[in-house]
Amino acid sequence: MTVDIAPQLPLAKDFSSFLSLEGAARKKSPLKGLLRFMKDDMISLGGGLPHPSTFPFYSLSAEVKAMGPADATVNGSSLKAVKAQPETVSVPHYPQPGKTESLTATLQYGMGTGLPSLREFCKGHVARMHKPQYRDWDVVLSAGNTDGFAKACSMVCSRGDKVLVEEWTYPAALEMMEPLGVGHIPVQMDGEGMSAVALKDLLDNWGTNPEQAQQAKPRVVYLIPTGQNPTGTTMSIQRRKDIMQVAQEHDLIVIEDDPYYYLQFFVDQQGGWMPSLLSMDTDGRVIRLDTFSKTLAPGCRVGYMSMNPQFCQIVQYHNEVTTQQPSGFSQAILAEMLISHWGQEGYKRYLTENVRMEYLNRSQHLQKSFKAHVSPLLASYNEPSAGMFLWIKIHLEKHPRFGNVSDSALMLELFNKCIANQVLLVPGWQFSCKSKPSDIDPADLLNSWYDDDARYLRATFAYATFEQMEEAMVRFGKTLEDAFAA
Amino acid sequence: MTVDIAPQLPLAKDFSSFLSLEGAARKKSPLKGLLRFMKDDMISLGGGLPHPSTFPFYSLSAEVKAMGPADATVNGSSLKAVKAQPETVSVPHYPQPGKTESLTATLQYGMGTGLPSLREFCKGHVARMHKPQYRDWDVVLSAGNTDGFAKACSMVCSRGDKVLVEEWTYPAALEMMEPLGVGHIPVQMDGEGMSAVALKDLLDNWGTNPEQAQQAKPRVVYLIPTGQNPTGTTMSIQRRKDIMQVAQEHDLIVIEDDPYYYLQFFVDQQGGWMPSLLSMDTDGRVIRLDTFSKTLAPGCRVGYMSMNPQFCQIVQYHNEVTTQQPSGFSQAILAEMLISHWGQEGYKRYLTENVRMEYLNRSQHLQKSFKAHVSPLLASYNEPSAGMFLWIKIHLEKHPRFGNVSDSALMLELFNKCIANQVLLVPGWQFSCKSKPSDIDPADLLNSWYDDDARYLRATFAYATFEQMEEAMVRFGKTLEDAFAA
Repeated sequence: MTVDIAPQLPLAKDFSSFLSLEGAARKKSPLKGLLRFMKDDMISLGGGLPHPSTFPFYSLSAEVKAMGPADATVNGSSLKAVKAQPETVSVPHYPQPGKTESLTATLQYGMGTGLPSLREFCKGHVARMHKPQYRDWDVVLSAGNTDGFAKACSMVCSRGDKVLVEEWTYPAALEMMEPLGVGHIPVQMDGEGMSAVALKDLLDNWGTNPEQAQQAKPRVVYLIPTGQNPTGTTMSIQRRKDIMQVAQEHDLIVIEDDPYYYLQFFVDQQGGWMPSLLSMDTDGRVIRLDTFSKTLAPGCRVGYMSMNPQFCQIVQYHNEVTTQQPSGFSQAILAEMLISHWGQEGYKRYLTENVRMEYLNRSQHLQKSFKAHVSPLLASYNEPSAGMFLWIKIHLEKHPRFGNVSDSALMLELFNKCIANQVLLVPGWQFSCKSKPSDIDPADLLNSWYDDDARYLRATFAYATFEQMEEAMVRFGKTLEDAFAA
Repeated sequence: MTVDIAPQLPLAKDFSSFLSLEGAARKKSPLKGLLRFMKDDMISLGGGLPHPSTFPFYSLSAEVKAMGPADATVNGSSLKAVKAQPETVSVPHYPQPGKTESLTATLQYGMGTGLPSLREFCKGHVARMHKPQYRDWDVVLSAGNTDGFAKACSMVCSRGDKVLVEEWTYPAALEMMEPLGVGHIPVQMDGEGMSAVALKDLLDNWGTNPEQAQQAKPRVVYLIPTGQNPTGTTMSIQRRKDIMQVAQEHDLIVIEDDPYYYLQFFVDQQGGWMPSLLSMDTDGRVIRLDTFSKTLAPGCRVGYMSMNPQFCQIVQYHNEVTTQQPSGFSQAILAEMLISHWGQEGYKRYLTENVRMEYLNRSQHLQKSFKAHVSPLLASYNEPSAGMFLWIKIHLEKHPRFGNVSDSALMLELFNKCIANQVLLVPGWQFSCKSKPSDIDPADLLNSWYDDDARYLRATFAYATFEQMEEAMVRFGKTLEDAFAA
């Protein structure tokens, strides 16, 4: 498919000056220069590719969910055409008419941008869903969002830099940056995620306190705008606009990590899918990270990065000397399923009717169980509108020993009681961005409850069965009452 | 399976002081600390894993080469039991008796070490084939050898370090290091690959020339011991021992990149597979990189790293914040094929009878075609005993204009004539380790023939058909004669 892009839109600005030492030094691979000679009757003894006849794999197939023919639309009548039985997606050894891919192509070495057909599908999907407001945006496949974030970060952050992050955030992002010598600066959050006011305030007044005087003004912000991990918050449209305005004012690169985007529960009530930060980007400053991990399965290890063409090229070069591209087995199955079977419309319908509904139901079930079994005096949460998480605030001030012992000690005691009562929730401090004592073992939950602000527990409704969720809330409710009893 | 390791062997030495800034800073992920609570009747609302019932994949299968039952042996009678027809490898949605894996497990998030069953298989294979000479070596899966090398390099090299490399080497390795600010120092080669004498000499005399005085003594050597890319050389057993002795004397980390190990043509004549550097490692100083790219298919994007336990742990942590683990589709198919169908013995037989023989035949065919059509006065090569490459030396001294114009100009002219005559070989300079002018476009083959020593062209016999190889040599032979005519 060809992606239509409005010709009146501007081209991306030049963000060369934002490249890290590493990013700026990435170059095209010499061996890839051979490709341009491959035309006419050329016989190549050039690239060291194994001959596909040597692959011991002759065909690949999967039984997958049927989402109807590729040309199905979302209106009622065509929905009826959708088969209830699984359908078989198969990839032949050699190219065949009617097939998008073959094992000959997908199991061979390929481009750092990813399998062309799958990349085009992803680009088409981004064009439909996000419509970036500049002309030359492009898409490169990653091996999932952790891989994509690592590549984005190493492209725009050098040792000594600090990245602006939500005050509670995905720990693996911080763990990725730390060994590179890239620090982080927490930005205050509210019920809609990162506060644009706090972000603006921090940047407007940068350098006015002595600690900041030693530190260059941050140029990169990392955030999870939808169903944020761990707080479950989703930015309103206005908040998104405000964040993008601050990003423009202060010339920031925005890393939009959005794995939960399609886990928006109230798409119908809210008048459609939330506009992404990418959809508001007129400059090419947003690096949007999408993944199939939450929509299809984590084991796909396929994601896609949407961003300006220079960034795409640098990540392509990075791919070429590291991961090369996602697995050919993954790409073959995904391309054949998404392109030959589901189509853009089928995939969108799958997201709307399956992914979204599944997590809506799960979210509501956990909340119902919470309300039935947990005292609202002792704990509460803000209802999430997307994602996988309930961010439970513990009302420590109701604890009989509140003020006599530290909040940390009370939270640790509560966590231990939860474990004793066989219900596991994640301690909030694990997502804290405050600087941790250097001698702490980050993997030790019990001895490290040092953060007095961490009055939270994160519960996910993604994995447990409905029965388990209910039972978990029974246990949690009892544990809380027990812990708060005199 | 359990890997038997001789109890009398020593434990790995401590290589902590070799860790880079990045390597030393890698830590365990806090969220992984949750796993230890998962026992008894614990209900976890902890890890944000999608429920496997949401995966739209219900089964996965592949037609693969049959290598007989898992318990087949290599003796004559059991070989007859091997079926000539492909067999079907299938992976069910949920665990089933008799199956190694299920999609529930393989398409879920997993450990940074890789899928346990596949990792165990790889470890068992390493134990059979390489038998490292220390007790606590271990294996971590990678997304192929480029990914493995990138992770090894970032673990033991900091910005400003320089790595010892063969004077002709795999360009992507240099391209990986360069953006990290990691340089390289070429070590002279001969017909057996890197010279141990040159390596020892360079290190014995380190710091005696003014250029080296500014540079710390190198601590890491990167080499491709078998079917080296691009020269096709394979280290003799003695050379391997000598290299390991220098590595011990000068306390070097050895990165053994060995993708062509199983493409050894003369296993029978030479009395078995060459001993790897890992097989001689008594200290834990070798990081061995293996991959399924050349033995099964590049698109697997699965490799495995064998090394000391500290290095394994650091790469595991690195995986957890980047690629996570290889694709679940790849791992599922490979685990089921290698474990439930082929077994260790079947895989070894596949390597011996298929991979090795295929490349032996290809190598011999290209050599036969070379001898039939290319004048031995104008070009020659050393017969390779492994790998994919013929490293063709051009006898420039026979050129009528030799000495009047630069060697570079003559080689560029020859390359252009090859292209005009529709035969593509890779210019030797692309594999050169000499420092290149900074304004060079590494992807431009034609304008960058600057290295006067680069009198080589690399030809691969891996990809072309037998007919194409013959025709390529006809074209190359004529081109050479034309270029060398007065």
